[in-house]
Amino acid sequence: MPLIFVNGKVLPVERAVVPAVDRGFLFGDAVYEVIKFKRGVPLFFNHHLTRLANSLHQAGIPFPQDLIPAVLNYLELLGKKSGSLYLEISRGAHLRRHLPPRGLKPTVVFFLQDHHFPTLKEREKGYVVHAMRDIRWKRCDIKAASLMGAVLCKIEAHAVGAQEVLFHDDRGRFTEAGSTNFYAIRGATVYTHPLGGAILKGVTRTLLKDVCKSLGIRWSERAPRVAEIAAWDEAFVSGTLTGIMPVVRIGKIPIRKGMGPVTRTLLDAFDAVEKEEWERWPGERDLLRNVYGGKKFRV
Amino acid sequence: MPLIFVNGKVLPVERAVVPAVDRGFLFGDAVYEVIKFKRGVPLFFNHHLTRLANSLHQAGIPFPQDLIPAVLNYLELLGKKSGSLYLEISRGAHLRRHLPPRGLKPTVVFFLQDHHFPTLKEREKGYVVHAMRDIRWKRCDIKAASLMGAVLCKIEAHAVGAQEVLFHDDRGRFTEAGSTNFYAIRGATVYTHPLGGAILKGVTRTLLKDVCKSLGIRWSERAPRVAEIAAWDEAFVSGTLTGIMPVVRIGKIPIRKGMGPVTRTLLDAFDAVEKEEWERWPGERDLLRNVYGGKKFRV
Repeated sequence: MPLIFVNGKVLPVERAVVPAVDRGFLFGDAVYEVIKFKRGVPLFFNHHLTRLANSLHQAGIPFPQDLIPAVLNYLELLGKKSGSLYLEISRGAHLRRHLPPRGLKPTVVFFLQDHHFPTLKEREKGYVVHAMRDIRWKRCDIKAASLMGAVLCKIEAHAVGAQEVLFHDDRGRFTEAGSTNFYAIRGATVYTHPLGGAILKGVTRTLLKDVCKSLGIRWSERAPRVAEIAAWDEAFVSGTLTGIMPVVRIGKIPIRKGMGPVTRTLLDAFDAVEKEEWERWPGERDLLRNVYGGKKFRV
Repeated sequence: MPLIFVNGKVLPVERAVVPAVDRGFLFGDAVYEVIKFKRGVPLFFNHHLTRLANSLHQAGIPFPQDLIPAVLNYLELLGKKSGSLYLEISRGAHLRRHLPPRGLKPTVVFFLQDHHFPTLKEREKGYVVHAMRDIRWKRCDIKAASLMGAVLCKIEAHAVGAQEVLFHDDRGRFTEAGSTNFYAIRGATVYTHPLGGAILKGVTRTLLKDVCKSLGIRWSERAPRVAEIAAWDEAFVSGTLTGIMPVVRIGKIPIRKGMGPVTRTLLDAFDAVEKEEWERWPGERDLLRNVYGGKKFRV
């Protein structure tokens, strides 16, 4: 069973608790990150930390001073495991009122859990996605734990046999999927929704933009549109845990069977980026240790 | 310090905890109610239970079988106290994945906390509200604990010296306030946003609609508009804890000083409705006891 870090202690999941009056529980007033942990390495750790810092800043929650050494110590416990590393920071705990009192101490929770990363065979098969109007809030750039909108739509998508929900706005522009960014490909151009409040700035999305540049594939932030589906050659979603996953069908509308050539090129290039990142980790970890120090916690 | 009910146990707030992997904490995947508790009486209890049942149904969370007798027992502990009674039901606890596993047991938390209910003098003074674009999700009819949008806007409103945030949509229609419904009055007509995903079906709003009918005050669900502020005679917000509260200013735009005559008429009539409800409680409680029974829990 997973070990869960809660405010300085590492506990088995059955004993890991937060206050019933934590703002994470009462208001979803918390931000989070999900990191792919692969044979002992938290991939793109700096990217995730930067985004976490941004979410915290946007939400007005202070960045916990001991977070980085605590995570580094926790990772040592994990050794060469793989899985999904989840970090959540809530604004803190107090009796319920919308306005937080001053000087609140954020609640820090993180843990590794097992995760099935899609195999190449599963990627060849791709996802069927279920298109729905985007009912989520307008600050999806903040990676907040107020996720009931995404949860309800994912439940609905799953109920109709789709693997993911694909959101569009009131003007028929696809924003992103339930927990992944979305891309349409036409010719040698990758189209995806521009940054802003409608989507999360995905770490994989950021890296893919660089990959496209280096490969000479055009990157356009003109949002893919519902009305233009028939003109697409390929489509895919990307996310930290999902990686790059072809979209083969939107509801009843087929895009293409299996993985298209541009998607395959991006997948191969991204695998190479991930491999480099994996090899870079020991140096990065030592640097982080030097900068932030290490504070041992009780297990 | 408050006593908190968590899944069948009543604990002091310091010891009241939920799992770190509760979906309420990880996803804001929970619904809630807030009830005005006045000298031993949970006002409009049936209205709140009905709305809770609706939120649970919309969210696909089962209504906990023992909830009603548990609340009734808890209320007995409270005697003749007053305050704010908070109830939250999350979808349950398990390791993190968006799609909930089958057969999950919902987490039930409720507690009474002290609350300062506005005095008549404070109502005469009224609220200054801060107008903001409505960034919340599009299912505000579900009373969900995914509230970071409302929280961030309330923090911003407070920072500029307002008592409440007032949301408008992209077409300049006022939807509702941060935790209250909103109304504009012109002549003898009360205007408020229609029901649907943009607003919560406030219990006070529902009761006010009846009050208006009985008083011959016209009730219009044509949403008040930003462009028409100058034509309003009065404006107010209403909520379970706030009651009826005049809005005297929207940002720098004055509505009117103090409480207007229509608002005062509604306030007086609502006080009478609340008084009747208060007196009706012993009978309602006995009826609920007969229907749902009582199961004692450990304190």
